[in-house]
Parts: sequence; C-alpha cells; structure tokens
Amino acid sequence: MTLPAEFQLIGKHFLPLADVPEALGLADDAALLRPPAGLDLVISTDAMVGGVHFLPDDPSDTVGRKVLRVNLSDLAAMGADPLGFLLTVALPKGFDQAWLRGFAVGLRTDRRDFGIPLLGGDTVSTPGPVTLSLTVLGTVLPGRALRRAGAQLGDIAWVSGTVGDGALGLLALTGKLHGLEGRHQAHLSDRYRLPQPRLALGARLHGVATACMDVSDGLAQDFAHLARAAGCAGVIEAAALPLSPAAAAAIRATPRLRAVAVTGGDDYELLFTAPPEATTAVRDVAAAANIAVTAIGRLEPGEPGEVRVLDEAGAPMELRGRGWSHF
Amino acid sequence: MTLPAEFQLIGKHFLPLADVPEALGLADDAALLRPPAGLDLVISTDAMVGGVHFLPDDPSDTVGRKVLRVNLSDLAAMGADPLGFLLTVALPKGFDQAWLRGFAVGLRTDRRDFGIPLLGGDTVSTPGPVTLSLTVLGTVLPGRALRRAGAQLGDIAWVSGTVGDGALGLLALTGKLHGLEGRHQAHLSDRYRLPQPRLALGARLHGVATACMDVSDGLAQDFAHLARAAGCAGVIEAAALPLSPAAAAAIRATPRLRAVAVTGGDDYELLFTAPPEATTAVRDVAAAANIAVTAIGRLEPGEPGEVRVLDEAGAPMELRGRGWSHF
Repeated sequence: MTLPAEFQLIGKHFLPLADVPEALGLADDAALLRPPAGLDLVISTDAMVGGVHFLPDDPSDTVGRKVLRVNLSDLAAMGADPLGFLLTVALPKGFDQAWLRGFAVGLRTDRRDFGIPLLGGDTVSTPGPVTLSLTVLGTVLPGRALRRAGAQLGDIAWVSGTVGDGALGLLALTGKLHGLEGRHQAHLSDRYRLPQPRLALGARLHGVATACMDVSDGLAQDFAHLARAAGCAGVIEAAALPLSPAAAAAIRATPRLRAVAVTGGDDYELLFTAPPEATTAVRDVAAAANIAVTAIGRLEPGEPGEVRVLDEAGAPMELRGRGWSHF
Repeated sequence: MTLPAEFQLIGKHFLPLADVPEALGLADDAALLRPPAGLDLVISTDAMVGGVHFLPDDPSDTVGRKVLRVNLSDLAAMGADPLGFLLTVALPKGFDQAWLRGFAVGLRTDRRDFGIPLLGGDTVSTPGPVTLSLTVLGTVLPGRALRRAGAQLGDIAWVSGTVGDGALGLLALTGKLHGLEGRHQAHLSDRYRLPQPRLALGARLHGVATACMDVSDGLAQDFAHLARAAGCAGVIEAAALPLSPAAAAAIRATPRLRAVAVTGGDDYELLFTAPPEATTAVRDVAAAANIAVTAIGRLEPGEPGEVRVLDEAGAPMELRGRGWSHF
C-alpha cells in the first residue's frame, strides 16, 4: 500500500528534523522522553497565522524559523535552554510543495543552530491561510527560572538589542516606509522576518534580573504587564530607547514613527528589571552574552500597570495604542 | 491601563482551567514544572480545523472537549496518564463570544473529568476558520510505554469499543444517513463529536499488548501503519468488527456503509496486538478497565503494511480508500 500524501510529506520534510531517539521517528502517537535529571521543564506554545503574523509572500524558510524563534524567545525570557519542539502545520489544499520545502529547510537551519530537535507534530489541511502552532520545551535549574513578577519599586528597566525594528520592518515590507535607503529597508525587513531569541542573555540573568519577559506585543504594553505584576507603575524614556541605524533613519525621515518604537510588536527582545545597584552586574552579564542592553526606564509608585512614556523633553507622549491586540 | 481584549478573554475563559501552580497563572512566558520523579514524559500534539475536523455548527462545548480528547487518545495509545496540556486557539475576527464561552465550559468539564490542567496557550486571530492546536503531556513508568512497533507474526489484532461510529456520525450530521431512527442518529453524532479516550485500557496494556496505537484515520489505514512497523502484512475480518447498535442499523439500511467501519476516521479507539496465548490476559485487562475489546484480525506473512479486508464470506472487500488523508 502506498503511503498517503500526508505521511510522505512528513517523512520527506519533517523527519530530518526529528533526529533524536525521543521523537520515535515520528512514527508513534507521541514522543517519549526521560526528563533531564535535576532540571525543571519550561514549556510554552505560540501560534502564527498567514496574513496576521507573517506576510503571504514572506520566504517560507524565514516563516519556519520565525515560528520556532518566537517560541525560543519565550524560553529566553524564562532563562531556559532549548530541549525540543512539537509543531502543527495547517496547509491550504493545493499548497505549493516548494513553499513547504523552504519552510522545512529553514527549520533545519535553526534546528542545527539552536540545537533543538523536532519531537512530534501534526499536519492537517485548512480552507484558511497557513496556520502554525509550535510548542517548545526547555530546561532550567530549579529555582533559576526568570519570572515576569518580582520587580521592585525603583528598579531600572532594561531592554536587549534594539526596539521598533520588527514593526518598522512590517511597514517596510508593506510599502509604507518612504524615503529610506534600500539597506535600511532590508535591515528592518530582516528583523521582522527573523527574530533573534536572546537565549544567551536570558540564561545568565538569574540573580541579576528581578523580572524578565520578552517584548512581542510592543514595549509599552509588555512593560505594563511587568509593572502590573510588580504592583507598580512605570516610566519609559523614549530618548533612551535603543534604535538600530535603520530605525533611526526611518524616524528621521518620518518623525511620527518614533511611537512605533514604543508600541510596535515583533521585536522579541528581552525586557527585564534590576535594582540600580545591579547596573554593573547587568552590563557584565550582557557583555558575557555578547548582547547589547540599554536602560530605558524604571518602576515608580502609581497605579499598577500604568506606564508613562516621556519624550525627549520629558513630556508625556501621546500614543494611539499601547501595542498589539488580536481582538 | 485597561487590559487588551485578548488578555481579558484569556483571564475569563482560560484561567479557570489553569488552576495549578505550574501554569504560573498564565501570566508568564511559559509554564514551569518539576517533572514527576521516576517517570518518563509522553508528549503529543494534534490540530483541529473548523470545517475539516469538526462541523461549523457543532456545539462549541464538544469542540473544546474533542480537541482535548483526541490528544488524550494519543496518551491512551502510549499507555500514559494525563499530566497537562497547552492550547492555541485561532479565532476569526468578530467571533461569537457565546461560542468561546461554550468552548471553555466544555474544556472545564473535561479538565475535571480527566484531571488534566491547562498549562499555557496562545490566542490569536485568523481570517480563516477556528483553528485549534493542543499539546498534551503525560507520564508513564520507564519502559512501560506502548509502542506502535513490536507486533509479531501471528499476533491477534484487537480493537476497543466499536468502530465506524465516528465516520457514520459525520454522515448523520451532514444529512447523509437515511432511514435511521433518531436515537441511532443521535448516538452516532455524539460519537463523532465526543470521542472516548481509552486511558483506562491503555494504562493496563503493558506486558499484554505487543503494539498499540489509536484509530483516528480509519482502521484499515491505521492497521497498515502498525503492520508495516512490524514488518508484516495484516488481515481484518469485516464480520468480526464490533459495531454499535446504531452503526449496525445504519449498515442494515444501507449495506455499502459497511466499508465505512473499515475506512472511516474519528473513532479514537485503541488498536493493539497480542499473541494468541495472551487472549485471556487481554480479556482480563479489558474487564478491569471496563472497556469492551474485540479480536478483528491478525498479522500474517506478506508485504509489510499490506492489509487485506475480508468480507463475511472470506472474500477480499473492495475499498475505495483506506482511510483519511489530508492531501
């Protein structure tokens, strides 16, 4: 009997990602693993929908890597190391085989670079757009997981890398960024398509950071979550925000885009807090991880979760929204 | 700051399912769990798409329970006990709040009945139909997991419960079953909408079954997978298939529907093998689990994965397909 097409495509595209005994060759009803001794498990799941979380004409290799990386970013935010992932893929009937091949090739690149194997999955058809859901498992030493709650009044808020690139990249890719050099457009587009999970930083922040999360829905909204969990208000100084040269050029060309650095999603940087006296420790950890970090604000007394954003002159910025919401 | 709608909806509908410390109140980037000492982890993921795996007008409480149960069925097939689950939900913009409420109410029923908490998830919007992906974690004593491979030539093939109900239920719900009493229509519809994961049976099959899997894509196709993993061919005796009174009535009314019992999907019964001398042990285990089991065929020499289906007279049945394929 010939294998149905579904099993052929799993064997061709996904089996090479599942090159560990725990995946059982993707031939059983589940994966089977012995939990690493003496470690806690960290587990998270994130979905991506074509036309919502990625563009229909994004190269499929970056789509595959993005859905893995946004989940790895959750591990980074918890200070965890990658262990494995499970993936469900819903594909439109009559989908392009080349699209799926590229998707799997991208995943293979990241399977290698992040050392994370596929443990299981499901492939189904949909009358809707390509829909991906990925569950990631990681490990962390007991008691060393970073948490969203735990920040203290007066703590400094730090962010890794640069902010605003993801949202500006989406604008670039949809033809809404004008007067910007091609290399800047390309940098921002790449940042939208291929987040950099800050695993090396997250893994070093235990004992330094009082709270940590990743910035996926926009800095102002995500910082509000962190501040609320601490029972504090917060302030962000827009002038302090770390911008890539490309983002800085985009904002010079169109000043109102400054707000995008505060409210735009898709950056997948780490947002964390630490007391002022830990500043040297924060810088040492960032240097060891080889990831830039920038102080961008602090926790202050006030309504829990209320975040003020101040402009260069110290005046409150008017923002139309605080970040991404699906509904 | 008011919480965005996405977080309100998570707090209202999903937080009550996440009533264990490991879920961290659904407020962190991931769940954090100490693996149960001395147990292996079993982990599986299955997706369901509106209009493909469930009907647009299926009651949403059964949709929620079905996506959990098809995953629990994978745990049953591995002989594992439920530990927790993660869920991604993609909802059309402007979805009906009552639909989501029912969905969550259904999940709460099964969260209680199967003792399985929500550990994490993601809620996103989609321009397509409701799309669900669920990852389930379970535990099993080391060395006691049931596997799809391991059956031996001459082993008897057994199936739990009754077969064909799921596929006949779909026919009933889409108005394609004629001349059948209302109570039979209702029984079959219920079986399509609400699978019964055979956890109590799977948990007892170690040392008795040589191989096990769940029947989701159709008995003939799934048995072919099991036979191929054993390097054997197989035979199914259609006359031996356990039919519910409703399925038997449907087949009496429309004899060509007999094939549906062999090729129809959505039954989520366990298919397992055991040597002939283990027959008493199989019956004892089934009695202890309070789940009926029926011998429906055996493994025989031949092309690996080739499954013959014999009719009442012992002649090969002609089947148009072997089971469900997405592509």
